[in-house]
Amino acid sequence: MRYAVLGTGDVGRTIGGKLAELGHDVVLGTRDPGATLARTPEDGSGFAAWLEDRAGVRLAAFADAAAHGEVVVNATRGGASLAALDAAGAANLRGKILVDVANPLDTSGGGIPVLDPVNTDSLGEAIQRRFPETRVVKTLNTMNCRIMVDPGRVPGDHHVFVSGNDDGAKTAVRELLFSFGWPGAAVIDLGDIGTARGPEMVLPLWIRLWGALGHADFNFHIQGARAADGRPAD
Amino acid sequence: MRYAVLGTGDVGRTIGGKLAELGHDVVLGTRDPGATLARTPEDGSGFAAWLEDRAGVRLAAFADAAAHGEVVVNATRGGASLAALDAAGAANLRGKILVDVANPLDTSGGGIPVLDPVNTDSLGEAIQRRFPETRVVKTLNTMNCRIMVDPGRVPGDHHVFVSGNDDGAKTAVRELLFSFGWPGAAVIDLGDIGTARGPEMVLPLWIRLWGALGHADFNFHIQGARAADGRPAD
Repeated sequence: MRYAVLGTGDVGRTIGGKLAELGHDVVLGTRDPGATLARTPEDGSGFAAWLEDRAGVRLAAFADAAAHGEVVVNATRGGASLAALDAAGAANLRGKILVDVANPLDTSGGGIPVLDPVNTDSLGEAIQRRFPETRVVKTLNTMNCRIMVDPGRVPGDHHVFVSGNDDGAKTAVRELLFSFGWPGAAVIDLGDIGTARGPEMVLPLWIRLWGALGHADFNFHIQGARAADGRPAD
Repeated sequence: MRYAVLGTGDVGRTIGGKLAELGHDVVLGTRDPGATLARTPEDGSGFAAWLEDRAGVRLAAFADAAAHGEVVVNATRGGASLAALDAAGAANLRGKILVDVANPLDTSGGGIPVLDPVNTDSLGEAIQRRFPETRVVKTLNTMNCRIMVDPGRVPGDHHVFVSGNDDGAKTAVRELLFSFGWPGAAVIDLGDIGTARGPEMVLPLWIRLWGALGHADFNFHIQGARAADGRPAD
């Protein structure tokens, strides 16, 4: 399948790389491809070096990437997501599934980031409102990106949440999660896109756990989760 | 030990009842004891009927309850907690451990409650600021009250968080949790009282999970939790 992954940071690279490994045709989107390729940090983490090793992954401007994708993944920084999606263009997103894995962390105050929007709104909802003809599914934002595409990295059962208004889109995202290695029982459908407030507001706890544990190889497991109909979810 | 449990709702009754079962000398605090005893809902959930069956539990005004307690538990509704603690009185709380299990849920908008304060503050911090000579420990707020005092109600491993500035107070609260049935490995110390923002902001996810699962017998387990020093936390 043709995928657009918007964002060339850790999250975009990790998801884009995994999708290419699975045989998909992947274009990563960025604001200015020339600038992205020209950045060569001394630590060797430059995008160009990463891309060289990734057969089946190309780089393009947001709009060209989005036009390419049958499914679009938002892996941009949450504070920049709406601008990135505006650059991608409503026409290039229309009718498509948009998998939103971003968190609207505001780092401008220094110290531990806070969420914006929060509590009475969420990034997932803000994106769905801005692009009403796009089928937004919020998922995977509650864990480190390495776990997103390799859940076995954390031994034992743990969960991934999905929120979205379109049941067909959620079914398709569930299949995507299976292809990443998530077992069926690991996926908890919280409901419509308004429920994205829940998993987004978990980030402040995630950040404190990261600090307290000293590593990011953990994930939330809802012990005792089972559907109201008695079907076990764990 | 002498305990004050402020609040006579489900949470206060559940914690107060458990403390009495464990042999402690418990006074539940309320704004107006006469009014609390006079309320007799048709469903039989009145406080007077509950109290009749509880040897070792008494009812008093907030200030008298707080004066009695060597340890004080805040089990009032979060939106009313600061007023309840003001009524309890700084002098009656001075130097004591205050176990804050409340969540600042604002239901005034109708529908699903939102948090106030949130994101850049928390109820735990607000209480600590208001009562600087009291040793506030935030804990247990991330689960249904029946699980707080009976963790075995949810089979398998799951976690309880503690946040507070005073290490001695956190050690004492850890002992209290053990007496409720929590194993040592289930307690995750997030850090100072500022970290209370994390577990408080989990409530919006808790509420959506309650809706999606159709029951409240679940709790958060941090899969992969282990301390930086390699000591297993699960």
